[in-house]
Order: sequence, then C-alpha cells, then structure tokens
Amino acid sequence: MEFISGVRKKDCCELADLLDVKSTEVVKLNGCIHSIRDMGEFAFILLRKRDGLVQCILEGANPNCRINELKEGMTVELEGVLYQEERAPHGFEIKIERLKILSAPKEGAVFPLPISKWKMKASLEAKLEYRPISLRNIRERAIFKIQEGIVRAFRDYLYSQGFTEIRTPKIVAGNAEGGANVFKLDYFGRKAFLAQSPQFYKQTMVGVYDRVFETGPVFRAEKHNTGRHLNEYTSLDFEMGYIDGFEDVMAMETGFLIYLFDFLREKYARELSLLDVSLPVIDKIPAVRFDIAKQLVAEKYDYKIRDPYDLQPEEEQLIGRYFKEEYYSDFVFVTHYPSKKRPFYAMDDPQDPKYTLSFDLLYKGMEITTGGQRIHDYDMQLAKMLARGMNPEDFASFLMIHKHGMPPHGGLGIGLERFTMKLLDAVNVREATMFPRDLSRLEP
Amino acid sequence: MEFISGVRKKDCCELADLLDVKSTEVVKLNGCIHSIRDMGEFAFILLRKRDGLVQCILEGANPNCRINELKEGMTVELEGVLYQEERAPHGFEIKIERLKILSAPKEGAVFPLPISKWKMKASLEAKLEYRPISLRNIRERAIFKIQEGIVRAFRDYLYSQGFTEIRTPKIVAGNAEGGANVFKLDYFGRKAFLAQSPQFYKQTMVGVYDRVFETGPVFRAEKHNTGRHLNEYTSLDFEMGYIDGFEDVMAMETGFLIYLFDFLREKYARELSLLDVSLPVIDKIPAVRFDIAKQLVAEKYDYKIRDPYDLQPEEEQLIGRYFKEEYYSDFVFVTHYPSKKRPFYAMDDPQDPKYTLSFDLLYKGMEITTGGQRIHDYDMQLAKMLARGMNPEDFASFLMIHKHGMPPHGGLGIGLERFTMKLLDAVNVREATMFPRDLSRLEP
Repeated sequence: MEFISGVRKKDCCELADLLDVKSTEVVKLNGCIHSIRDMGEFAFILLRKRDGLVQCILEGANPNCRINELKEGMTVELEGVLYQEERAPHGFEIKIERLKILSAPKEGAVFPLPISKWKMKASLEAKLEYRPISLRNIRERAIFKIQEGIVRAFRDYLYSQGFTEIRTPKIVAGNAEGGANVFKLDYFGRKAFLAQSPQFYKQTMVGVYDRVFETGPVFRAEKHNTGRHLNEYTSLDFEMGYIDGFEDVMAMETGFLIYLFDFLREKYARELSLLDVSLPVIDKIPAVRFDIAKQLVAEKYDYKIRDPYDLQPEEEQLIGRYFKEEYYSDFVFVTHYPSKKRPFYAMDDPQDPKYTLSFDLLYKGMEITTGGQRIHDYDMQLAKMLARGMNPEDFASFLMIHKHGMPPHGGLGIGLERFTMKLLDAVNVREATMFPRDLSRLEP
Repeated sequence: MEFISGVRKKDCCELADLLDVKSTEVVKLNGCIHSIRDMGEFAFILLRKRDGLVQCILEGANPNCRINELKEGMTVELEGVLYQEERAPHGFEIKIERLKILSAPKEGAVFPLPISKWKMKASLEAKLEYRPISLRNIRERAIFKIQEGIVRAFRDYLYSQGFTEIRTPKIVAGNAEGGANVFKLDYFGRKAFLAQSPQFYKQTMVGVYDRVFETGPVFRAEKHNTGRHLNEYTSLDFEMGYIDGFEDVMAMETGFLIYLFDFLREKYARELSLLDVSLPVIDKIPAVRFDIAKQLVAEKYDYKIRDPYDLQPEEEQLIGRYFKEEYYSDFVFVTHYPSKKRPFYAMDDPQDPKYTLSFDLLYKGMEITTGGQRIHDYDMQLAKMLARGMNPEDFASFLMIHKHGMPPHGGLGIGLERFTMKLLDAVNVREATMFPRDLSRLEP
C-alpha cells in the first residue's frame, strides 16, 4: 500500500531560501518567465515567483538552453550559480546552467497588456477585461496581498478580543437592509434573495457567543455606476454583546485599526513599498455628531445644506477635509444619524428619538463603515417595525432572539474593497477588487 | 471634540479572569441567565458567558435582589464574592451581593426547547426550526467553535506554506462544475449563476500568486434530500502551482490534517471534551487507486460492483471500513477516478486517459474532499472541451490563463460541514451547519 505523508521540503528554492544562500553556490528554482531582455551575448531572464522577481542571466553560448527557445509566460525549472549583484532585485542574480521548460503558453499568443512593465500603462477597462493576466503584474498583485493583510488583521484582532467566527447563509428568505436593491432567485419554487448583509444572523449569534464576526460576500442590486459602488463585495462584520453604548463598538474598531496598521507594517512591508503606501499613524479617532458635522463644514467651506437628514458624498468629502485640516486625522466617526435614514433594527437615541445611536466611519472623506447599537428589547423592536408599516410575521425568525432575551449589543460592517481603495489612494473601487461585479461586468 | 481610543479593559470579568481570582474576593461580571434552580432558601443561577458557565448563588434573604424577579434569558450584571467550590463548573461559585438586570426576554415567553439541559432532548427538526435559540445550548454551540477551529487551522497552515488568500465572486457567468445543479438569477437583465465552486478563479490566481486558497460559500441546486447534502455550504479550497504531480496536493492536505488535529487539541480542548470527541492521530494516509479499491471491498465484503465508473455511497463506506480494519486509518485517498466522472479541467492520466490524476479523500467512509491535477496546457484543455461538446467561447475568460501560460498545478476542495459532521460522528450534516439550506429550509 502507498502512503501519503505531509509536505516534504523540495530541492527547489523559494525566494526566502535564496536570500540566505552564499554567493557562487549552485541553486535550483522554478518560476514563470516574467520578461526576457535579449542583450545579444546574453539575456536577462526575470523569473516571477510568488514573493518577488528573481533576475537570471542566460548566456548565448549556454549549450543546454538557447535564448530563442524561451518565451515570456513559460514556466521553467532551472539550476544556476547565485552571485551577489547590487543592481538586481533583492541584490542577487543567477547565472543559468541548466533549464527545463515546465509549461508554455499557446503558440503565438501575445500578451494583451504589458504585464512585465513596472507601471503597467493600461486603462482600468482593459485591466478588468484581462483581469486574469493583468493581476500577474507585480504592482497589481501587491494590491490584493495588502487586502489579504486587512482581512487577516481583522480576524486576528477579533480572535484576541474573544470573538467567534461565524458562517451565515447567503441565500435568505428576508431582506435585512430594506429597499429594492436585492438580487432575487428561484429557490426550488420559492422566492429567495441574496443576503445584503449578515445582519440578522450576526445579531442572532450574539445571543450564542456574545461576540461574533464574519468576513464574507454581500450582494447589492444597486443600479449605481460610480467609482465607489460594487454589486458584490466583501463585508468585514462584527457584532458584540454587553456593550455600555455604541462607543464600545467604535472603540473596538479603533483598536482594530491601530492593530491593523502595525500588522501591515510588519508583515506586508514589501507590498506597501511596491505601491508607495504610507500608512496612517493613529491612537485615537475624532467623533462628531451628524448634525454638528454638517454645520461645521457648511460654515467653514460655505456649503449649503440641502438635505438635513442625509450626507451627500460631497459633504463626506468636506467632513474628511475638515478633520484632516483641523485634527490631522484621516479618520472621523460621524455619530447619531437620523433615525429615518437607518434600518429598523437601529437603536434610537432615548434623548432624542429622531436620531440613532449609530455611526459611520469616514476615511479620507468616504464612508467605509456603518455601525451602531441595535434594539435588544422585543417590545421596542416590534413597535419600531409596526411604526414603519412592516409585518412582524415576515421576521419571525429574527424576532425569536428578542423574544427569548438578548444582551444590549451593537456592531458594524466594513466594506473591504472600499477600505483598500482609500488606503491605496485609488480613485475607483474596482482597482481594489479582484474580480469586480458591476452593472456591466459579470466576467471574468 | 470627543475622541475614541481603542478598547479599554472593563471592570467586568471574563471567565479567564475569574479563574485567576483568589477565593473570597469580590468580582463583577455579566452574562445571560442560563438556568435558575430555586432551592427555597437560595437559588442556583447559572450564568452563560461566551466561554462557559458560571455558577452563582442568590440567597432568598438578599435585600438587593429577589429570586422571583429573575427569569431565564435575562442578561444581568452582578457583583459577588467568589468561593472555591469543587462541584461547580470550573471549581468556583459566586455568592451574589448586587445584581442589575440589563435586558429581559418578552413578558411571558417560554423557551421552545430546553436549552439549559446538558443533552438537549429535541429532534433535529425542532433544533433547526428554533436554531437561533437551540444554538444557545452549551453543547450545540461547541460544535461551531470546533468548526471555527477547522477553518482557522486551514488558513494558518496554508499561510505558513506560502499561500495567498483570495476572494472570488459568487455571482458568475459560467458554470464550472457542469450539470444542471446550479442556481440561476437575473443580473440586471442578464442570466447569471451562483458559483458552484471557485474553480476557475482559483486556477486563475495560481497564475498570479502560485499558491492560493479561499474559504467561502458555494451553492449547489441539487434536489437531494439526504443527510449529507446541503444546497449552500462552505468550501475550503486551495490550489497550488509547480507541482510534480497530484501527490503534492495530497501531501499538502495530509500536512494540513496533521496540523489541524494538533491545533484543535491545543486550542479547542474545552469544546472537544464537551462533545466527547476523540481526534484521530495521523502521520500518513493510505492511498489506493479507484479500481483497486472497488476490487478490494468487492472481494472482502462480497459486494457486487454495479457501476465500474462511480463509487456508490455504500462502496465509500466499505472502503472506509476496509482501511479502518486493515490499516487502522480513518482516512483514505482514493485516486485515479474515471475521466468521464470528472470535470473537463481534470488532467487525464497519460498512462491511461480513461482515468484522471485526481483523488477523493474519504473520512470514516464518506467523501470530504475532491481534488487533483488540472490541465495547464492550452491545446490540451481546448481538445478536452471540444471532445465533450463544449463551446470554448463560453469559457474565454478561463482559457485566457492557459493561453498566456500556467504552471503545472492542482488543488482541492474540502466540504467544511461534512468534515465537521464526520469529526463529531454526527449522522446528519445539518447538525454541523449553523443555518442549513436544503430543499425545504430557507429560514432561519
């Protein structure tokens, strides 16, 4: 009988191994031919590996491998001698002795985009059209490493704070956030929806684990065609019980952000440097009431308030600018949103029920988080639903949690792609989305 | 201006804090009243916290709190003196001095299930009907902590092996796994599907990062009503490039399983003990060819082979039994599945193209993983699609990766809920699913 053991170290080196190798040693490695620069006597072969590029030299006189047999996009395994070379990436290059072709692109295929260029000159449209290829560019792929870092830090931080990770269904019977922007599907003859958020489920699970989080896809059938909307995105959600107020939720998010930037500095330094990202240094975040924020920017920037119950994107930008100018902060919590602009599960402010115990977090003038305290009392939740003309029977599963007792609780959702976009100072959220879904884009 | 700092330590103790407290100290804590046992002179109040139960004593003569004011399902904050008490959970109990009610269930509400019982006697049907409440049972919630542990270990292990985490769209234009079992939806007037797997995308991302993984929902519109099928489940997927053969994929899974069981033993000991789970000890896993496995069980158990190209669930059970009896192994890799039972992206065995370089992992006689080597060559992929009567134009985005070069690669998908089910020796996968979606269940 054959048996499979765990992973064994292979004789091919990864980049980290190569950094430890002494000059003039013979090494073996594999990778994808990212670019070939033929200098006549010899050629520079840049090998793309998962953690960076390796510069190799193939001499024209090499009897084991001819330059003209090689092609960008091939994957190869090679042996050669490593030499220190300051001008090469990571300070070394490899003089190829033997080379084996592992795989080749289609005969005659031409790259649709110049992926081996440092700054790939291509329209966003072209980059998205050829996403499987454009992501092979070193700087493009760095974006999604940093995005990975955000998700990792979110999970790590919340685990450290006693949160439990949950997985909630994406095919649902009800519509948590209200409105018409929901995708419908046929579920074995019944009407079903794609979840706009894990809201009901994360509140439910606070009754089980006190503190929960989820990082998963959410779906919005919004017909917006803007640089900040997606129809499918990743939501970083948490929900926590036994709060003294919604300030506890904001404090948890602040704690996460402080942790995140340290985490990225430590673990994703290479990618941050590739993309010239300078991370904010924060230890606290200003918080301002919704109505005050509107007044402040109306006064300072001579802005005319049109809708006292909502923030225009333009106002968000001005609030961001105000807090950058006055408090040197990229972040600002805007609190106490008007009740009529918040969902039925939001807790109204007992001091003034026109407003809610809720907040948005603006980052560089754009909303990246919505959160707040939720109603935990059954009668209060029922009354708010009835006042909004909703039928409580449609929400029987959700009301079950209030009926049988819930701690005071609150939570938030962070839009991952939008957060990534702002962190990288991208102008379109699609830049920070691996495979965006929008009004016109269902592929790749 | 108000500022929000990170999380500050509260004066309420969590269970871990209480374990460090000396006897007769006064402590403050909060939690949910899990059960009240009125003994006349005093009452036992069991408080449910996220990491376990805390036994409290409320004396009838307490001037600050009356027993009959309390109700199961209330959440409270209390102060009291901690005493060592061997018979109590965690070896201590708290004599209540002051108690504040934070929230109360609906007046007159009666729990639909006896959630405070150690073994909650309830049908699966009832547990799922009242899922938001049944999960509050201590043993029920332990199931999903262990499930969390599986996902964490999967990620941690793969990070350590140089994998990158990816997020791929769930609304897709094409149908990776073939067949009719796919949910359809209207996407702004276009026909779209819910992803049956991240297959195309994870292969695509191997071209970018060499090694990738995703833990996310997948959707199968199968009309099976069995104890092992779900219509939405969590798939633990990875895909890796530069493999020498599909054995590398099996070795990576074996490495993960070895890591996993150590991880669970270390971090989830409490939940394993609550559920009396004994973890397998493995250092290697037997691997047997599909056709040989069929022969072995046909001979040993006098089983008549009906379909030489597929494994019946009954045969999977027998193969599991065979390897348990002959090799003391709960796990067995079954390799070289027939080509016509595997998708179009599977690599055929060059030795015998009727079979593929693929495998399933059986655990206690049930398939929990499907994986294998994929086709990386453009012409080979095109030929296989054409031979199956598929239209390559429908897969233009996918074929883009082969066209521009892919390393030899392979990967797998593990069904999280099914794996959890087998680990816990549950008989129905719904036991190991937080909010199952099946033919009749779209709520809660």
